[in-house]
Amino acid sequence: MRIVVLAGGIGGARFLRGLKRAAPDAEITVIGNTGDDIFLFGLKVCPDLDTVMYTLGGGINEEQGWGRAGETFHVKEELAAYEVEPTWFNLGDRDFATHIVRTQMLSAGYPLSAVTEALCHRWRPGVRLIPMTDDRVETHVVITDGQGRRAIHFQEWWVRLRASVPAEAIVAIGIEDAKPAPGVLESIEQADVVLLPPSNPVVSVGTILGVPGIREAVAAKTVVGVSPIIGGAPVRGMADACLRAIGVETSARAVAEHYGPDLLDGWLVDEADAEVAEQGIEGIAVRARPLLMTDLEASADIARAALRLAEELR
Amino acid sequence: MRIVVLAGGIGGARFLRGLKRAAPDAEITVIGNTGDDIFLFGLKVCPDLDTVMYTLGGGINEEQGWGRAGETFHVKEELAAYEVEPTWFNLGDRDFATHIVRTQMLSAGYPLSAVTEALCHRWRPGVRLIPMTDDRVETHVVITDGQGRRAIHFQEWWVRLRASVPAEAIVAIGIEDAKPAPGVLESIEQADVVLLPPSNPVVSVGTILGVPGIREAVAAKTVVGVSPIIGGAPVRGMADACLRAIGVETSARAVAEHYGPDLLDGWLVDEADAEVAEQGIEGIAVRARPLLMTDLEASADIARAALRLAEELR
Repeated sequence: MRIVVLAGGIGGARFLRGLKRAAPDAEITVIGNTGDDIFLFGLKVCPDLDTVMYTLGGGINEEQGWGRAGETFHVKEELAAYEVEPTWFNLGDRDFATHIVRTQMLSAGYPLSAVTEALCHRWRPGVRLIPMTDDRVETHVVITDGQGRRAIHFQEWWVRLRASVPAEAIVAIGIEDAKPAPGVLESIEQADVVLLPPSNPVVSVGTILGVPGIREAVAAKTVVGVSPIIGGAPVRGMADACLRAIGVETSARAVAEHYGPDLLDGWLVDEADAEVAEQGIEGIAVRARPLLMTDLEASADIARAALRLAEELR
Repeated sequence: MRIVVLAGGIGGARFLRGLKRAAPDAEITVIGNTGDDIFLFGLKVCPDLDTVMYTLGGGINEEQGWGRAGETFHVKEELAAYEVEPTWFNLGDRDFATHIVRTQMLSAGYPLSAVTEALCHRWRPGVRLIPMTDDRVETHVVITDGQGRRAIHFQEWWVRLRASVPAEAIVAIGIEDAKPAPGVLESIEQADVVLLPPSNPVVSVGTILGVPGIREAVAAKTVVGVSPIIGGAPVRGMADACLRAIGVETSARAVAEHYGPDLLDGWLVDEADAEVAEQGIEGIAVRARPLLMTDLEASADIARAALRLAEELR
């Protein structure tokens, strides 16, 4: 079976770990969000791609869900001693090596998709990981604060401000001109099913779907999503702040309706949102089941449920 | 008093530490060798400038004489795990931060001299440290080995091969077109004395003197050098292998004669080479005294002797 997953960071990575266990023989292609990418200290940092790669490759810091296990922070300490900004982004020494290799390869002319493949040669994540695009797309957030109305990089809003200042708009700069990376459309076309893990529907899955051509390709397939919202709140992260920015309610129903029946065929909601399944959503098959990815087996169960629903809907 | 020192790495840095103690009120300008510079993993590494900066700024690994104290090597471990070459150059995590900042500033358009000044703003070495040039100069070594006759980067010869393969030639690529960095010629012109520390006379001091304009400016001043050769052998490093490549004997006398009386006014040799002082060198005042920089006070004594000799010759 061929499965395509559109993934952000932690939620996507944990779902993928479950999916690998649920479907050990499947050929899984992950289309990773790169809208969160940021140049820091002259180095290209791809938080979502790395979270997927480290998680599936066994290098992740399990407690925090991102960054490397056994990490030290000496480079960061020294950069701060040199008074180099920003100081709010937490890069560890082991993680720095990834960004150094990536930047060196990009400078040598390799596209991000080739670089990602090279990095995965080491990590052997057991999936094919492709960035949504080789073009530069950067999510910016429009805020108003003491410095007036301005756009800041998504990471500054998310990490430094902890999304505490309301987002007036969220804009993926460069997305209109971005082309899907090699393999993205092909893998979607060949997929038996496309899964949307419980990643952020705005700045992760939403950004991937915003690359011209991807949404149309996905919509043509059997698509099953897992709600990132349980009982009116995001399971983790600050998806509510992102949903508010685009005028979507923080609810399992509203997110499915935001994706829309043209895209989504099936939707898994948590038992806390069982009423959504009971009431139904026009054009989308909704099932309620436990959605907390408390451990690998729980994640695998969710993935199995998603695959079962997809099978039913094909 | 205004003192200019042409410095390589460890020997130059330790001499400078002694000089600062010997002449606490002097205005010391250090013209640093950049021929050893190398791009590694896309980052600009300046071994000699950093050794001077870390040594005088209190961040050096005292035992090995280069690199940072309290260092860890996680970035390097990870780069090796990615199978990124070279693996033979030992960069620590704290050291990496310096190269990251430097590379970022260079990419932003700042010349190396401005970058070095910015880095020194943190380290406060107590001297003005200027690279010999802002232009790219890279020392290469011609060798013949299993792969035939070829030129390799100086660092590969020095660090990977430990200078074990004979150097058929040593060439500072780009030096003919290099311009002295801003402040280099001015500081030499304004100097009361120019000191040559016991740095490598070929690939450190020799390279600095090879930048068009520097040798002439230095030759016009009172110049006192400290022999890096004691009893026919280099005190440290593999200067003998470099001297052999340019057809100069490894002796305190031969190095002074190689610099020549047009450049050198005074020359300190070790007591092991007292006969050189007794026999004299045409046009150069030679004095014998202990030259081992066993500790800070010994280094300061050597610096005092150099300054006394310069005073005598002015």
